[in-house]
This record gives sequence, C-alpha cells and structure tokens, in this order.
Amino acid sequence: MYVAVIGSATCDEKVAAQAREVGREIARLGAVLVCGGRGGVMEAACQGAKDGRGTTVGILPGTDRREANPYVDIPIVTGLGEARNTIVVRTADAVIAVSGGYGTLSEIGFALKMGRPVVGLDTWELGQVGQSVGEVVRAATPAQAVELALSLAGQGQREETGDG
Amino acid sequence: MYVAVIGSATCDEKVAAQAREVGREIARLGAVLVCGGRGGVMEAACQGAKDGRGTTVGILPGTDRREANPYVDIPIVTGLGEARNTIVVRTADAVIAVSGGYGTLSEIGFALKMGRPVVGLDTWELGQVGQSVGEVVRAATPAQAVELALSLAGQGQREETGDG
Amino acid sequence: MYVAVIGSATCDEKVAAQAREVGREIARLGAVLVCGGRGGVMEAACQGAKDGRGTTVGILPGTDRREANPYVDIPIVTGLGEARNTIVVRTADAVIAVSGGYGTLSEIGFALKMGRPVVGLDTWELGQVGQSVGEVVRAATPAQAVELALSLAGQGQREETGDG
Amino acid sequence: MYVAVIGSATCDEKVAAQAREVGREIARLGAVLVCGGRGGVMEAACQGAKDGRGTTVGILPGTDRREANPYVDIPIVTGLGEARNTIVVRTADAVIAVSGGYGTLSEIGFALKMGRPVVGLDTWELGQVGQSVGEVVRAATPAQAVELALSLAGQGQREETGDG
Repeated sequence: MYVAVIGSATCDEKVAAQAREVGREIARLGAVLVCGGRGGVMEAACQGAKDGRGTTVGILPGTDRREANPYVDIPIVTGLGEARNTIVVRTADAVIAVSGGYGTLSEIGFALKMGRPVVGLDTWELGQVGQSVGEVVRAATPAQAVELALSLAGQGQREETGDG
Repeated sequence: MYVAVIGSATCDEKVAAQAREVGREIARLGAVLVCGGRGGVMEAACQGAKDGRGTTVGILPGTDRREANPYVDIPIVTGLGEARNTIVVRTADAVIAVSGGYGTLSEIGFALKMGRPVVGLDTWELGQVGQSVGEVVRAATPAQAVELALSLAGQGQREETGDG
Repeated sequence: MYVAVIGSATCDEKVAAQAREVGREIARLGAVLVCGGRGGVMEAACQGAKDGRGTTVGILPGTDRREANPYVDIPIVTGLGEARNTIVVRTADAVIAVSGGYGTLSEIGFALKMGRPVVGLDTWELGQVGQSVGEVVRAATPAQAVELALSLAGQGQREETGDG
Repeated sequence: MYVAVIGSATCDEKVAAQAREVGREIARLGAVLVCGGRGGVMEAACQGAKDGRGTTVGILPGTDRREANPYVDIPIVTGLGEARNTIVVRTADAVIAVSGGYGTLSEIGFALKMGRPVVGLDTWELGQVGQSVGEVVRAATPAQAVELALSLAGQGQREETGDG
C-alpha cells in the first residue's frame, strides 16, 4: 500500500508534529510513504516514517536530486515543476492532507478527480458545486487519519470519469 | 491578454449559457480564450468566443487532436492526461471558473499557487487554512467575471513562492 | 495541417536561413507552424512564417510567456522543461528537423515513436537497431522539406505501438 | 548512485540476457536501477537486479500500477505517457541503453541534453550535427557497460545548456 502525505513546504511546529506522527503510523502499518520530497509537512512526514523504519519516496519538482529532504529514500527527479503533483497523487492508494496551501488544494482536486480517497487533518473545507461534493474525510488525529486512509484505499479505487 | 475558462466537460444548459456568455465577452474585449479543449463548459465558452470572432486555444489531455470540441482554433495535443491542467493555467493571465468539478478544483489550486487571479461563477467555495486564503473572486454575471479577470490580470502577476 | 519545426536554440546564419525558408514555405502552403517557441532555428522558422503571413505556435519550456521569440503568435506556457518536446511533436502532423542538437534528437525519437513523419535538413543520421530503422526522410532544400512533410502527413498517421 | 536502463518493451532472448546481466551488475555494485517499469529490456534488467538483491524503480507511462513488471519494487505512476521518459533519465546519474527502438532514441537524446553519461550496448549509432556529437560510449559487455556508467557518473554531472 502507498499513502501520499501532502501539505506545505513550510509549516509551524504544531503542523510538523502532526505530519511526523502521520509518517510514523504509515511506517508502523507497513505502507510506503509518497510525497513531494521537499520541506515542511513533507519533510516531517518522511522523518516520522524513517523513525518507524518505513520507506519514503519523494517526487521532486525540480531538476536536482539534492532538493530532496534528508529523509527521502527514493528521490524521483521530474523537472516538471508543479505538474509533479499529479504523480504524487497517482502513485498513491490514498492521500492524507495535513494543513496545506494552494499546492495542497490542487492535489486534493486531482485526488478526488482520480478517485483516490482523501483524508484531511486541519485542511481545506470544500462545499458542493453542482453534482460534485468535496468529499475530504475529516480525521481528528494522525493515527485516525492513517487508519482511515488505509481502510478507504482497501475498498478499491473508484473510477476516473470524464473531464472537469 | 489570455484568459482561461475552466469547468466540467459535461454541464447543464444553464451553466453552458453562462460559459457561452463568458466566451463572448472575452472575445469582445479582445482577449484570447484558453481552455482544456473538450466538451461542456469548455465547448460552450469556445462557442461563445467564436460567435464573438475571438481566438480559442484548446489544451487537450489525450493524444488525438480530434478530441477537441468544434470551436477550438488551435488544438494543443499534450498526451499528459490531467497534468495538462497546469498548462491551461500557466498559459493564461487570469482564470474564470464556471461551476466545475474536481478537475476545476485542481485548476483553482494551481492558479492560486501560480499567482494567477481566479474569478468564480457559482464555483467552489474555499475557506482558510493556516496562512492561505482561498481567494476566488466572486462574480455575479459572466460580463462581470470577464471584466474582473482582465482587470486583475492587468495588475500583473504575483509571484510563485515555494511548495505546498 | 500542423507542421513542427525542430532545431537548436542557437544556430549560425546558414542554418537560420534554411529555417526561415522552411517557415515561409509552411505559411505559403497554408499550414500552421508549431515549435518550441525559443531562439535559433525556432525563431528563424517563426520569422519566415510571419513573413509569409502564417500562424505560429510556440510551446515553451519555462514558466514565463516572455521567453517566446517575437514571431510567436500563440505562446503556450508549459513549465515542464524539456518534457515539453513531447507536446511539440504530438501537436504536429509532421516534423521537420533543421540541423539540431540533443534536444532535436530527443524530438526525432519521439516523433518516430508517435508515428509522425520526420523530414531532415542536415540533421542527425541514424542507423538501424534491431527492427527499428531511423527513418528520417532527407530533403535537399527547405521547399522540398515542406513538400515532403505535408505529403507524408497527408498519408495519415501511423500507429504508436508499445514502449521502447 | 542511480543507473537507468533503457530499451524496448519487447525484445528477443539475446537482448534480454544482456539486460539481465546489466541489472545484476548494477545491483552487485550497490546502485539503484531506474527504468520505465514495463516489459522487454526493462523487465529483464529488473529481474537481474532482483537476482542480485538490488532495488528497482519503475517510472510508468500509464495510470495503473499494475502495468509494472513483477520485478519493480517501487512503481511510480505518472499518467504522462511517453513524456515519462524524461523522468527516467533525470532520476538517474547515468544511462545504459540496451538495443532499443524509437523511445530509447528519445531517451538517449534527453540524456545527452541533460548531461547524463550514456553507455550503449548494441544501440543507436549517432553521427555529428553541427557542434553536437552523439557521444554514446560503446561497451562490449554488460559488465563493462555498468562499470563505465558508474565511472562516468562519478565524474559529476555536466551542465544542461540552452535548448535544442
């Protein structure tokens, strides 16, 4: 099982502590952590996963492997800029958003579009537009977020349909 | 000036009428319309722009030019799937979201990330997360949406900063 | 009909003169010129096409429209770096390589892979590897290159098959 | 150290045997194998690397992890089609081409463009065009190919410059 952790490249210590705990739980439950490979939430989640002896994959936006945070095991160098967000989401079975900014919002949109379950910790609230409901499943704690993500991922991937 | 119109590949007639009016106004004010090149909101906007003798660019997800709607003047064939959304946004000076689904949500996230002004007609409502405010500028009518988009675009592009 | 002109971002005057003539012929025969939007061969070809009152599309690698050469009508801002080469090729019905460096070589590979006819003016010579023949059709003059490109494009697109 | 092995998704047993030996040597020397994740040369190389207890990364073109060959440890799901070739090359310190078709040719072009050393086993022969020399370093055996790749990679990455 592959779980993506998404969130800002800079964050305060409270958010970082949550991300670390998410990473630790992902490792403890035997899943591989996927992220954008950089700082902030991504780095904290990778650090947590390594504390738990897990495996971490960092899908980098730039052209140099050295932009990866020190807890990334497998750095993927895309050179695609922000478009690499789509690969973070596609590579995972489920996505956990920890706080987050606009890049995180784009990843939530992609994940819902691609049928990946999204679990949120203090992240974007979405309403409803036409037929689409911004179905981010809320978690109260990091442990619950990981449990929900793995459980929803296990229910199989929903279909991508059409554009929009 | 380049204005992107984003929205679902399928939509009801009320939304289509709004999108057509948006396209017509973009053409009337001399801007080029950029979109994802497919049906629904994208097709209606292109149709409106062609009614107004404007120019339309369709940035397609697939590998075949024939997936473009009949009102696209310049079809760009990316073969990148949903990652082409990032190109729609980058190519434009401002973005107008008309209703929309998850793909539209991803484009709103990208646009805010890349510092492109986003104007919304009956689209996603976003709250605040940490320092990030989901600043979609609301418009009441298609004409107002285009006016706002061009006016905000003219104020110059804000900087992209960091990840997240 | 869409014809891509590929070649280096810097070139000497002799190569530039060939590229201008290629652009002029593309415009004269009513096709749209597609290129990577930058200097050297790309700029010369766009200049030729504008001399001939044609239309030019520049598919840019970076994140800023201002990197386009002054003869690009429709700049597409990909932010994808070199991966944008795949879009230049996919968007065209046929490809003309004028001299060229390693980026051009990558585009020739993509074009042959995607079944786009490739016509070459003083460009890479390719041998045979296993079942694959590097079938770049040689042209002696710019006018012949455009004639060959349009004629081969008219024979319809060959199929992409598999990986490799 | 990361070494990419590139080649066709279908190949005969002689080529597969070479690719397996390349994979085995990569693992034996402690490098990580990167490839496009599919069949033929890619599968054989991954199989060899797993025989040697190495680690394999497969950067897939499609949208489904299940298209990976059974010897891929870390499947990266890009959904980008052939544009994923640029990521295979960027992620590696050096590239080994084993036989190969047009996709391989595109990867050789990208690798030379990005300053990654390319070692070839029975692969494309390239001439010279203007200032560019198609500098694929020839190896006589799989073991020599890996030795050359690691040695050239160790000399540090040359600069990417300009377009073309």
